Amino acid sequence: MELRHSPRIGVMGSSDCSPETYNLAHEVGYWIARSGAILICGGRSGVMEASARGAKEANGITVGILPGDSAAEANPYIDIPIVTGLGNARNAINVLTSQAIIAISGSYGALSEIALALKCHIPVVGLKTWRLIPPEGDPPQIILAESAEEAVSTALTLIR
Amino acid sequence: MELRHSPRIGVMGSSDCSPETYNLAHEVGYWIARSGAILICGGRSGVMEASARGAKEANGITVGILPGDSAAEANPYIDIPIVTGLGNARNAINVLTSQAIIAISGSYGALSEIALALKCHIPVVGLKTWRLIPPEGDPPQIILAESAEEAVSTALTLIR
Amino acid sequence: MELRHSPRIGVMGSSDCSPETYNLAHEVGYWIARSGAILICGGRSGVMEASARGAKEANGITVGILPGDSAAEANPYIDIPIVTGLGNARNAINVLTSQAIIAISGSYGALSEIALALKCHIPVVGLKTWRLIPPEGDPPQIILAESAEEAVSTALTLIR
Amino acid sequence: MELRHSPRIGVMGSSDCSPETYNLAHEVGYWIARSGAILICGGRSGVMEASARGAKEANGITVGILPGDSAAEANPYIDIPIVTGLGNARNAINVLTSQAIIAISGSYGALSEIALALKCHIPVVGLKTWRLIPPEGDPPQIILAESAEEAVSTALTLIR
Repeated sequence: MELRHSPRIGVMGSSDCSPETYNLAHEVGYWIARSGAILICGGRSGVMEASARGAKEANGITVGILPGDSAAEANPYIDIPIVTGLGNARNAINVLTSQAIIAISGSYGALSEIALALKCHIPVVGLKTWRLIPPEGDPPQIILAESAEEAVSTALTLIR
Repeated sequence: MELRHSPRIGVMGSSDCSPETYNLAHEVGYWIARSGAILICGGRSGVMEASARGAKEANGITVGILPGDSAAEANPYIDIPIVTGLGNARNAINVLTSQAIIAISGSYGALSEIALALKCHIPVVGLKTWRLIPPEGDPPQIILAESAEEAVSTALTLIR
Repeated sequence: MELRHSPRIGVMGSSDCSPETYNLAHEVGYWIARSGAILICGGRSGVMEASARGAKEANGITVGILPGDSAAEANPYIDIPIVTGLGNARNAINVLTSQAIIAISGSYGALSEIALALKCHIPVVGLKTWRLIPPEGDPPQIILAESAEEAVSTALTLIR
Repeated sequence: MELRHSPRIGVMGSSDCSPETYNLAHEVGYWIARSGAILICGGRSGVMEASARGAKEANGITVGILPGDSAAEANPYIDIPIVTGLGNARNAINVLTSQAIIAISGSYGALSEIALALKCHIPVVGLKTWRLIPPEGDPPQIILAESAEEAVSTALTLIR
């Protein structure tokens, strides 16, 4: 199997989410896998589980970059658990490993990942996510999408 | 010298800032040291340098948690350089090491630190900083301050 | 593809190695893939490249946990680059992500990984590697192997 | 107080040690502080506690770089707790922050720190510590000392 030229798309969102957000993340994961991209996520519950589940339904590959020190922490849809033991510091790895990120709703963890992606010039696509008003200058370049499919196709365009 | 009961206040802000922001950070550092607290910061230029400089002028102690792999990267007002070699992942350490943080203006790095502090239930005081509108629910608890002295006294009150 | 029940074996060794060591690592990678396990390594040159190359020749899956902040640093046989930006601190992730490690010859980086694996109770198989004499008590449990194939079959036995 | 030109010496050793090792580490900490150096350690029990205690008895400054996510984990002789939340990955920070390290006896954690220091060209002084026999080439440059005072004076000479 040749994976090394596959795009890597990160999905960022809360471990505890509403059913609507879960469904949206599930659809995002599905389209990521359908497009031939690898799904990168934090490996746990909520948005991370939903997106990995969607990706596996489309026969994709899923990577879960875990905060704790055991692979048992991964949700059942993760193919490759990366066991960091770093706590929240692992958010920086989620971001650097992704060529673009899709932020879906999200709480403070996802906000930290949006911020790090913007800092590292990694494109950010937003689905019903944070609105950020900086202390000075222009608001950050979060590309808003209206649907899961649009979010994924936008991420792929930004990677290329 | 007894330092272990001293409060630890983190100052978060950009390595590249306006003269007004530099002056504000300088004043924040001064009041942190005057109150007997230890200054935690990222150890580099801009807001980090200004606050450490202010703290040294009031005879305080300054800790710089550096992203690179050399202590030479520290600004000249850092007493204790912590050399992490972790890049942006060190932001998580800045936050965990502080009992409260004061965010001064700030770009994406500071935004990631605000997010991580909110996630870890570490109080955040804001001086002319980011305004954050969540996808759902109430906006995060960033306590706004109008002056350097007010920011420091608020941080100390929140720590106790 | 179902990967999540595949064993994960880490290969630790120097980025700069002799032709004999390169060949040995190449063979280890080959047997890891043949056995259906996923290869975990540091993603760079020398032993890491040789083992990933061997694994790809047997149609396996390779993960490279990189120290720098760019996927371009990965050798051409890495399927899934994990971009940590953590420098040597990423060695702890190599170890935690592996269910057993095979140390091949190796310099100080590999020595740090052997030490962390022993600390975390992750089995260590050694091929022409460090000999360690502790300040007190018994020497550490590094299982010595004589060939690449034996090293891999020993690692798999220790995982099960 | 001017600390920024003070040397920084790391003390590495086990969290669980014999009374003899505890006494030796206590004496090392004392001489570090007497020489005007800052003590860097992992902040916990055993060798880390003993050395910090010795340093405080000589009125020195102690920094504890903690693996967990709470400053409460620090031993009572730590002035400045650095709360990393990184688990064993924080060992890399202990090493990079020190200009020389003194390894006292020690288990696998200390062994990983010796290895990382050797990799990063940070001088290592050994007191009753690991003996390391490499797979090829010369054994690593661990400078052996016979007493606490000699270990500290050797470390200082190597820093200058």
